[in-house]
Amino acid sequence: MSKNKNTMTPDLLARLREQVKSNPQTVTEVIDQIKAPDAAELINELSLEDAAMTLMMFPIEEAVAIFNEPSCERRHEIMEILEADRAAEVLKKISSDERSHVIRRLTPEGRAKLVPTLPENLQDEMRMLLQFPPTTAGGIMSTEYMHLSPDSSVSEAINHVRANSRQRLHIYSCYVLDDESRLLGAISLRDLVIASPGKAVQDVMRKYPISVHCLDDQEKVARILAKYNLLAVPVVDDNKKVLGFVTIDDALDVIIEEHTEDVHKLGGMQALEEPYLASSLIDMVKKRAGWLIILFIGEMLTTTAMAYFEDELRKAIVLTLFIPLIVSSGGNSGSQAASLIIRAIALNEAKLSDWTKVLWREICSGLMLGGILGTIGLLRIAIWSAFLPTYGEHWFLVGITLFFTLIGVVLLGTLAGSLLPFALKRLGLDPATSSAPFVATIVDVAGLIIYFTIASLILRGKLL
Amino acid sequence: MSKNKNTMTPDLLARLREQVKSNPQTVTEVIDQIKAPDAAELINELSLEDAAMTLMMFPIEEAVAIFNEPSCERRHEIMEILEADRAAEVLKKISSDERSHVIRRLTPEGRAKLVPTLPENLQDEMRMLLQFPPTTAGGIMSTEYMHLSPDSSVSEAINHVRANSRQRLHIYSCYVLDDESRLLGAISLRDLVIASPGKAVQDVMRKYPISVHCLDDQEKVARILAKYNLLAVPVVDDNKKVLGFVTIDDALDVIIEEHTEDVHKLGGMQALEEPYLASSLIDMVKKRAGWLIILFIGEMLTTTAMAYFEDELRKAIVLTLFIPLIVSSGGNSGSQAASLIIRAIALNEAKLSDWTKVLWREICSGLMLGGILGTIGLLRIAIWSAFLPTYGEHWFLVGITLFFTLIGVVLLGTLAGSLLPFALKRLGLDPATSSAPFVATIVDVAGLIIYFTIASLILRGKLL
Repeated sequence: MSKNKNTMTPDLLARLREQVKSNPQTVTEVIDQIKAPDAAELINELSLEDAAMTLMMFPIEEAVAIFNEPSCERRHEIMEILEADRAAEVLKKISSDERSHVIRRLTPEGRAKLVPTLPENLQDEMRMLLQFPPTTAGGIMSTEYMHLSPDSSVSEAINHVRANSRQRLHIYSCYVLDDESRLLGAISLRDLVIASPGKAVQDVMRKYPISVHCLDDQEKVARILAKYNLLAVPVVDDNKKVLGFVTIDDALDVIIEEHTEDVHKLGGMQALEEPYLASSLIDMVKKRAGWLIILFIGEMLTTTAMAYFEDELRKAIVLTLFIPLIVSSGGNSGSQAASLIIRAIALNEAKLSDWTKVLWREICSGLMLGGILGTIGLLRIAIWSAFLPTYGEHWFLVGITLFFTLIGVVLLGTLAGSLLPFALKRLGLDPATSSAPFVATIVDVAGLIIYFTIASLILRGKLL
Repeated sequence: MSKNKNTMTPDLLARLREQVKSNPQTVTEVIDQIKAPDAAELINELSLEDAAMTLMMFPIEEAVAIFNEPSCERRHEIMEILEADRAAEVLKKISSDERSHVIRRLTPEGRAKLVPTLPENLQDEMRMLLQFPPTTAGGIMSTEYMHLSPDSSVSEAINHVRANSRQRLHIYSCYVLDDESRLLGAISLRDLVIASPGKAVQDVMRKYPISVHCLDDQEKVARILAKYNLLAVPVVDDNKKVLGFVTIDDALDVIIEEHTEDVHKLGGMQALEEPYLASSLIDMVKKRAGWLIILFIGEMLTTTAMAYFEDELRKAIVLTLFIPLIVSSGGNSGSQAASLIIRAIALNEAKLSDWTKVLWREICSGLMLGGILGTIGLLRIAIWSAFLPTYGEHWFLVGITLFFTLIGVVLLGTLAGSLLPFALKRLGLDPATSSAPFVATIVDVAGLIIYFTIASLILRGKLL
């Protein structure tokens, strides 16, 4: 892909997308003038066959550039129907992290067909990369790092970079390794350019560079890159041998992906792996049904609780009118508390040991918020009762019941919402699982019990 | 801050934090051995006075390094109580984006005291930066970019870089500008090192580099950096004049910040700006109370709806038992749909024009999911009724009512959850505002109406 191409405005891109959709043949002309990430978006709009056809017609550099884009969906599927020669060439030329990403997703037949076309050294590398789980540092790393030896001079090092730098690849950092490939230091190209040419690399490198272990979770790696403002971090094995590196733009992709997972979990479902419109309907229903069924069964306890209070309900039908209002208020305050705490834990702003501090804050918040809602509820009943008989002669007692119930339920909601993420974290689970629906289900059952208990205390002898 | 320092493990960091908390004087020894981002975390644990004291005692480079960390909280407050000379020196030496971040947050007195201590050229620069809203490209950019002229040679350019590169700053890219500072091209240090030294810069630079406008929203800037795999993007004004650049690590911070905002909104509240434990209790209650009150008032409609069906409730008390179960199922399915669509819109996977496709998918999902829950509900009633009289003699009709109600309510939930984010987006609002509680409130009221309508159709002449 040539480096001198125009960037698209979203409008122009939308128009091109329409054009390509209605007339797939024109895609080659269009793609010739735009950058690879935009080209990948257009390829996404084509049918699988048209996409493969298009990628056949391009000069090989363009095809490689598009296959190097993580945003190009279905790369593994396209690879399988691409003509064998082209597939082999693309696979050889794309960067190592994208290569392992694609190979991981090939069918067994596709793998058997394509992997043997790779040069011996790349096959070895693939075997090494594929042994790491796909969401670890080893699973997402690139292997094309620049390595220098400690006692070469700065000018030798610059010549080495010049000779070994592959077209189009950023150089994030050069790593200085000993004879056994163990990490001694890191040095940026800038530091090399600035240093006096005669000095030894080991005298100008940064010692104790930050590194990650090949089995570290990708989210941890992303957080380290963000915290230490690094452009790349070397990945090492148990013996401190450097295996590759993860770059900040990979980290950005990881963080965006994890964010999607979080939002799905917060919505009370299993995270989708594919984009919404690209997922199959059945797959999507499966990911949603699981939690929905669990929540439904949990929520059935409300039916049991209500049946237990059937007598009270029969005597004071007015009490039923507030049930949805009460349970939803508990759920809403719980949802707020959960979202605050989930995020504070994710950002490391709240540690496990902070749970008592959080408890105290949430007791205060819950009492205040419950007091506010309780007052509004009481006012509503008072105002209505001045004009309508809906709430009966004992409207004031009903109002007081509502007032205290709301304080209790909102307090319960904030406590459940704030402590559940800590409990999940303590158990080694993802705090984001304590979704609004999950918290609401817990609070609903307990909220009804609070409601009927307060009602029987206040209304006994009057309505009950 | 020296470049050869150890990285902390979280454990060690926790232990140091305890030590520093119990004995603030030891902080200088500790900080001397660790990297700036870890030092910033320790400084966060100190009282404001201890933090300022600590930052007075350090060599100036260490103090500057810590002030350059976005994770160092309360930088503006520390700056105000720092001794005047030190404050002036730190402010002069930190990077331009952090400087404008800190100055924005100073009190008017602090600004009046500190800004005049800056050299004339930095004062001008600050005036320029402060005119941009804090969440735009102009508001977060750095100004220390490396600029080259188009007709200097590659070797001259390298010498220029060598002479002008400030200690500790990454060089993300060099920008090639014409006489009026307009952007002609971009070139990385790697490309310069590789190019033949005699060539002109304009012959080796990348033409048509991607740039952003100074008033573009920071989230858009972050998305462009992510999409085009850039390490930095130049920021230009209306005349294409380069004002500065935004780096990918700034983008990472922006994305993490926006994620926090999203999670808070999804929880049904206004986003907090400060970390949870650092926010004042009153501020937090305010941000939560607003939405909680709106939702409570909306949810009051359920009371009105129930009052309307009071006769039916009185005749068939068994119907009340399922109310929490029904409204929560609608809310849960709505929460799932909303989280899927909010995220798909944020990632540009679903465009406004895709709403009909989404509608169709959600009708299918809603019918399937509702059918599953309805069947479980019916089974539960059937099994219970084999042993207990809870659901009365007409248990089968009650079960059928529940079955159809669940299909209707779950369908309603998926439709409300999936279409509301589109509607908000269309109105120019943030789709993440369609939080689980918001969707649930809409669905609750409509769900009760569906329930009682179906009940009166099926149970008329039997229970009703």
